[in-house]
Amino acid sequence: LRVVVVGGGAAGMSAASRVKRLKPDAEVVVLERTRWVSFALCGIPYYIGCIVKHLDDLTAYPLEVFIKERGIDVRIKHEVLDVDASGKRLSVRDLEGGREYEIEYDYLVLATGARSRAPEIWPELRELENAFYVTHLDGAYVIRDYLVKLKSGSRIAIVGSGYVGIEMVEAAIEQGLKPVLIEAAPRLMPRVLDEEYSKILESYLAGKGVEILKGSPVKDLKYSNGRLKAIELESGEVEVDAAIFGVGVRPNTELAEKAGVKLGETGAVWTDEYMRTSDESIYSAGDNTQTTHLVTGKPTWFPFAQAANKMGFVAGTNIALGNAMKFPGVTGTSTLKVFDLVIAKTGLSLAEAQREGFNAVEVSISGGTKAHYMPGRKKIHLKVVADADTGRLLGATSMGESETAFWRVNVVASLLHKKATVEDLLFTDLGYAPPLAPVWDPLIIAARQLLRKVKAAKR
Amino acid sequence: LRVVVVGGGAAGMSAASRVKRLKPDAEVVVLERTRWVSFALCGIPYYIGCIVKHLDDLTAYPLEVFIKERGIDVRIKHEVLDVDASGKRLSVRDLEGGREYEIEYDYLVLATGARSRAPEIWPELRELENAFYVTHLDGAYVIRDYLVKLKSGSRIAIVGSGYVGIEMVEAAIEQGLKPVLIEAAPRLMPRVLDEEYSKILESYLAGKGVEILKGSPVKDLKYSNGRLKAIELESGEVEVDAAIFGVGVRPNTELAEKAGVKLGETGAVWTDEYMRTSDESIYSAGDNTQTTHLVTGKPTWFPFAQAANKMGFVAGTNIALGNAMKFPGVTGTSTLKVFDLVIAKTGLSLAEAQREGFNAVEVSISGGTKAHYMPGRKKIHLKVVADADTGRLLGATSMGESETAFWRVNVVASLLHKKATVEDLLFTDLGYAPPLAPVWDPLIIAARQLLRKVKAAKR
Repeated sequence: LRVVVVGGGAAGMSAASRVKRLKPDAEVVVLERTRWVSFALCGIPYYIGCIVKHLDDLTAYPLEVFIKERGIDVRIKHEVLDVDASGKRLSVRDLEGGREYEIEYDYLVLATGARSRAPEIWPELRELENAFYVTHLDGAYVIRDYLVKLKSGSRIAIVGSGYVGIEMVEAAIEQGLKPVLIEAAPRLMPRVLDEEYSKILESYLAGKGVEILKGSPVKDLKYSNGRLKAIELESGEVEVDAAIFGVGVRPNTELAEKAGVKLGETGAVWTDEYMRTSDESIYSAGDNTQTTHLVTGKPTWFPFAQAANKMGFVAGTNIALGNAMKFPGVTGTSTLKVFDLVIAKTGLSLAEAQREGFNAVEVSISGGTKAHYMPGRKKIHLKVVADADTGRLLGATSMGESETAFWRVNVVASLLHKKATVEDLLFTDLGYAPPLAPVWDPLIIAARQLLRKVKAAKR
Repeated sequence: LRVVVVGGGAAGMSAASRVKRLKPDAEVVVLERTRWVSFALCGIPYYIGCIVKHLDDLTAYPLEVFIKERGIDVRIKHEVLDVDASGKRLSVRDLEGGREYEIEYDYLVLATGARSRAPEIWPELRELENAFYVTHLDGAYVIRDYLVKLKSGSRIAIVGSGYVGIEMVEAAIEQGLKPVLIEAAPRLMPRVLDEEYSKILESYLAGKGVEILKGSPVKDLKYSNGRLKAIELESGEVEVDAAIFGVGVRPNTELAEKAGVKLGETGAVWTDEYMRTSDESIYSAGDNTQTTHLVTGKPTWFPFAQAANKMGFVAGTNIALGNAMKFPGVTGTSTLKVFDLVIAKTGLSLAEAQREGFNAVEVSISGGTKAHYMPGRKKIHLKVVADADTGRLLGATSMGESETAFWRVNVVASLLHKKATVEDLLFTDLGYAPPLAPVWDPLIIAARQLLRKVKAAKR
């Protein structure tokens, strides 16, 4: 049995390791275009901010572990040029040696990830020496190398206020730079936060000295001699010393398209619950792959590392054992920490739930993280959304200067996974001790208030 | 409609507030023996340790809020002497005025709480000026008042290493005293922790300068002139300047017995899911009340504040609306923070699960709280227990110098509430960001390892 995995990131290395563990006799080959495997791209902002010193720190295991301990034939700097799905064969180029060769597979795993949309929108970004987008670890090296040489107080534009953008704002400040955050939408993190929470984030960042330009789509980039000089907005030009563009990602589906496997409605690779594509010899896992949203029951594309790892784990399990395990999908949990502010969301916001046709209701509360009489108590904001007809929980968002905002959302994520109701949230037996939580936890208060809005209940 | 609530603690005030909110015209009377209502007895160790300054800080709301804003007829310093269940009538003594009177009820709520077992074991504790057990807020005042006058470095025995005992150890050190922790069992917190975790707690406390005498049942108390001088153990006498006894609590069921309502197998008051006792005019809620353990399906007695509050909420709802809401039971989640060490448990330990007849398996891991490359990462210990036949989750225990040990257990508690499986834990969509969690969270690693031990699964 030969399994070839394309892509050595979270999903690919999980799949490869899993096959090898369950079927030690299988030949498992990983083809990775860069020189890195099991890399944590999510760690890049912390590398750029110098919180993480070395690029090597961002890999889960050194290459040798996969090759020597796990017996995986990992080929870094190998690029897949083409795939012949009917012949079960890949053409590959060794980027260092220059040699091209073919390799046959019994099973192929596509774990090709996603890539920044920025250079497709602004092709000149590929050339400008002081304008960047986040690609990969080597790219992160180039960004940091440039930023550390800038004078303290230099102005850096961060374009886009998604996860990457917000994390880069902190990295820029860690580097002694003055960030200006440019967002096309009228508010920050529009795909994660509602208007009220966007404002809380905005005033928090403003308090950290971040200049914020929202409702400001980029009209043009002004550059000369290979250097970005200014970003043109409706409101005028913003002169900058450097810029980082974080305007979203899209799935790398070229190889899937060459293989002729089906893409889903989201544009990412379609698979069944076993992570098998429309070609039964080809599996797909990670940021290039579509999955199911467990709250809506609909297809979703959710390019986050933890889901990628699990999809790879499931794909590897099923290749080794013959479709023994289903990946159920995601509830759409995401989180972010910027300075001390934690933002976390799971499931649907009120607006999203209403768009999906739910008779959705929301409660919004602010509450303390500990008993009211304990020192170190922080205030967190929490919104919980439910279906008024059935009482089913649909989502939660929380923010505050406490990691417990994240964990409270994880509690709701666990309940969403089990399609739980507002009563389940009320009666889940959360632990209580004065230094750790209030006796009426914000989660419980939210559930109590939601009950009143749920028609199905008699109260 | 007149509802009389006996006991002004968490359960009683929740029930009273709930009735009044849903039926504003109802007459709601609370009879409370002490001068405190809505008190947080869990906060007493922090008051004794002077982390909390004033006793008033330990009440959720001032008395006036209940009386004036909520319209509840709260009568503090009123003790219930007897109950005539067939006549629906209580005899009451006003402890300040000395007057005795009768009051009739349509519904009675027994929220009489629990009390320390210590004075039943050692009646002399009621008299000794330097030996204490935790009773109520006024008793906490007496303890602190005594301890603050002791010379720094005085030796205080803490007898019993349950929640109260461990928290009191910290309070004693905050007061500049030298605690000696005396535990009858061969290890600390024997009802919460297994042997391995007991040892971790023991060495942590030893590192804080706590003297620990385990396997040391108290044989006798040596006192003279109303002062405890020494505690006699098998191994000899321990001379002490003061002592606090935290050897467990038992439910206050005297009034329930007078009313002739049924007690459960645990010794606490039996109710149905509506919190109604065997007398349909009498409800019971809180630390005096038996409930159901959702993992075993069996009766349990679980005297913790959060469950008490919720039971009161349910009792009040059902009195007002006619049995509209069920209290489902508890999964037995409890937690503790001592210095920076957090201990949390939900559901069953391996030994408990085996005793209950489950074909139980356990995994034990230690893992980081954040991505491996992020600063501030702490190590936590985590054990998760499942049923090997069905894959059902049965419990989890975690400890470490991070509040996230508590929250990870809460995630398992949520899943236990929904009778989830190991696969559910693996696939629950927990959020991920490098400063908040590792991508393979300890919870997910535990689930992955447990899968291998679960027969029902094909792996």
